[in-house]
Amino acid sequence: MTWTLARRAHKMNPSVIREILKVTEKPGIISFAGGLPSPKTFPVDAFAAACATVLKTDGRAALQYAASEGYRPLCEWVAQQLPWDVSPDQVLITTGSQQGLDLVAKVLIDAGSKILVETPTYLGALQAFMPMEPHVVSVDSDDEGVLPGDLQTKAADARFIYLLPNFQNPTGRTMSEARRAAVAQVAQTSGLPLIEDNPYGDLWFDQAPAISLSARLPDQSLYLGSFSKILAPGLRLGYVVAPRALYPKLLQAKQAADLHTPSFNQRVVAEVLKDGFIDRHVPTIRALYKSQCEAMLEALTREMAGLDVQWNRPAGGMFLWAKLPAGMDAVQLLPHAVDKGVAFVPGAAFYAAAPVQETLRLSFVTSTTEQIRTGVAALAQTIREHLPR
Amino acid sequence: MTWTLARRAHKMNPSVIREILKVTEKPGIISFAGGLPSPKTFPVDAFAAACATVLKTDGRAALQYAASEGYRPLCEWVAQQLPWDVSPDQVLITTGSQQGLDLVAKVLIDAGSKILVETPTYLGALQAFMPMEPHVVSVDSDDEGVLPGDLQTKAADARFIYLLPNFQNPTGRTMSEARRAAVAQVAQTSGLPLIEDNPYGDLWFDQAPAISLSARLPDQSLYLGSFSKILAPGLRLGYVVAPRALYPKLLQAKQAADLHTPSFNQRVVAEVLKDGFIDRHVPTIRALYKSQCEAMLEALTREMAGLDVQWNRPAGGMFLWAKLPAGMDAVQLLPHAVDKGVAFVPGAAFYAAAPVQETLRLSFVTSTTEQIRTGVAALAQTIREHLPR
Repeated sequence: MTWTLARRAHKMNPSVIREILKVTEKPGIISFAGGLPSPKTFPVDAFAAACATVLKTDGRAALQYAASEGYRPLCEWVAQQLPWDVSPDQVLITTGSQQGLDLVAKVLIDAGSKILVETPTYLGALQAFMPMEPHVVSVDSDDEGVLPGDLQTKAADARFIYLLPNFQNPTGRTMSEARRAAVAQVAQTSGLPLIEDNPYGDLWFDQAPAISLSARLPDQSLYLGSFSKILAPGLRLGYVVAPRALYPKLLQAKQAADLHTPSFNQRVVAEVLKDGFIDRHVPTIRALYKSQCEAMLEALTREMAGLDVQWNRPAGGMFLWAKLPAGMDAVQLLPHAVDKGVAFVPGAAFYAAAPVQETLRLSFVTSTTEQIRTGVAALAQTIREHLPR
Repeated sequence: MTWTLARRAHKMNPSVIREILKVTEKPGIISFAGGLPSPKTFPVDAFAAACATVLKTDGRAALQYAASEGYRPLCEWVAQQLPWDVSPDQVLITTGSQQGLDLVAKVLIDAGSKILVETPTYLGALQAFMPMEPHVVSVDSDDEGVLPGDLQTKAADARFIYLLPNFQNPTGRTMSEARRAAVAQVAQTSGLPLIEDNPYGDLWFDQAPAISLSARLPDQSLYLGSFSKILAPGLRLGYVVAPRALYPKLLQAKQAADLHTPSFNQRVVAEVLKDGFIDRHVPTIRALYKSQCEAMLEALTREMAGLDVQWNRPAGGMFLWAKLPAGMDAVQLLPHAVDKGVAFVPGAAFYAAAPVQETLRLSFVTSTTEQIRTGVAALAQTIREHLPR
């Protein structure tokens, strides 16, 4: 007796990142490889108080089955804080924003459907889309995101383009106002739907990024948000904001996927959010991440002197993107770096096609500034010892 | 600009049950329609204590991203309490057992794949399977479950049969030991994989049901369990036990679906389960549900006298299955029953094909015994007034 797998299952593979990260889990390694927020930022006491309040005041309802749409006060909070006109009826609470991507795939992708992504793009989105067997096309991109000209060329017949405009994972880059305007223009004239993913948008250092693409084209966009980076990821709470034309199908896919997002978690987060908690809390995350980013930039400037290494200067978020000297392969470099006590994610993992082997992603949020200095020095030494001849 | 939907999205429809239940949500209605456990059984104080402990002792880890497989102590608890040889490495914690069905569909169903279900079957399973576009075939069933002869006839080339052997939703029926042996025999000789769903198995009244099909054919079975009926559904915690050959594909589908089940919820439940809590708690649910089931059986015997209504006598679980006089349609009866203050679910919703219009599902767990008496009397009166001429 053998199990007959669905065709899509043959295309599922172990997460490249997770396999790579296993190498980096040795004790004592300074890891710039993680995609995790800093646990220092988790408001543990606020969660403890909220759990107690929810269970005391409405425990039985919080522990019961609930509506697939989400806990209404949480939907209202989401709608209210978005800077364009959104009704709570357009908000679908998801089990993390990763689930939003799974629902998008189910509702919008047939086998062979063309979908467009940035170059590079978020690996988890590719993993969510792949089971529905799309034809993934990478749109050429620069430091400001996808290039409108290439987008125009590739837009015909695409089901959507998936975009992460703010402090992108993996590159940390942000779409400028001009680029957003140009991309929205191409999308509008081409009738190309936008899937806009914004898990990091609140984590700006000095000024908020330009307004969302979804605010410009609300009927043509699905907007994905998350509580993972502004509160904590272990609750698995995200949301999709959908045009009214699309909402019912996403809701039906959600019902089939897990009935509803944990009602207890939704009530606890709604309780934490009361009285403007986010407005007091998020600035502390911004300040922490900004100081850590600066520590990494300073260390890179100091340690990479004389090496032909390039990196960008993120305006927010958790990641920085670097490029090794021409001809170096970050995948091959990683084990040597781990031997010297530092880890990163090779950028190749984030390309839907034609990976740039020299690239790598560095997270600056989970290490201390001391570790950042030590780790960047170790990385520079590793590069120096493995320069191409 | 229009959204182009995936072909599967056109087959998604609003949950029939949810639409029906909207009719029953009028205030004052006695509802036998719900599929919800009794909130009286939720151990609110134990959850409050566990939340406080988890956040105090390990709050930052509980709020961080976590392994897709699940929280190891919870996987170990699941493996340890199952009455056959299961390794924790075979346990995948899911966001409710509904998600287990979604993962099964993704990994095992291609468009057009034949899959087998009981007659009738759990509606939520059909909803989870449908997006992958299977060809669903109903296997003839009696009060003991699927008929081995019909199963034998239909087994060829089927990807799996989906079975709910204990106190089935919707019928409340249980597979006998002899039927299990016969079904396992057919499955083994046909090489037919089993998807065994067991959310209600612990809710027996007088004696535990016969041992699982998965215990008989562990390499040929996926077993789905849930904490929703023995603790609370609002945490959304279930699990899949998979043969080692299949586990990696389910894990990859899980990663793509929502990265992992909420780590906080898993730790809270692991904390609640410590020190044999379930062994003290579940008997209280059994006693409550048994007394409510008896109240419903007594009321049916009393109120339906002289009417040609039939019903079964469940040995556990939450549901009882009834059949109206020949020619009556439960869908048409429902609004009249609601007018008299009582609601149920028409059985037609649970058939993959050829619905039996006379059938209906009655939950005995969320109403008081007083409400059960009043509600069954109202139902009998409704039937009496609408008997076929």
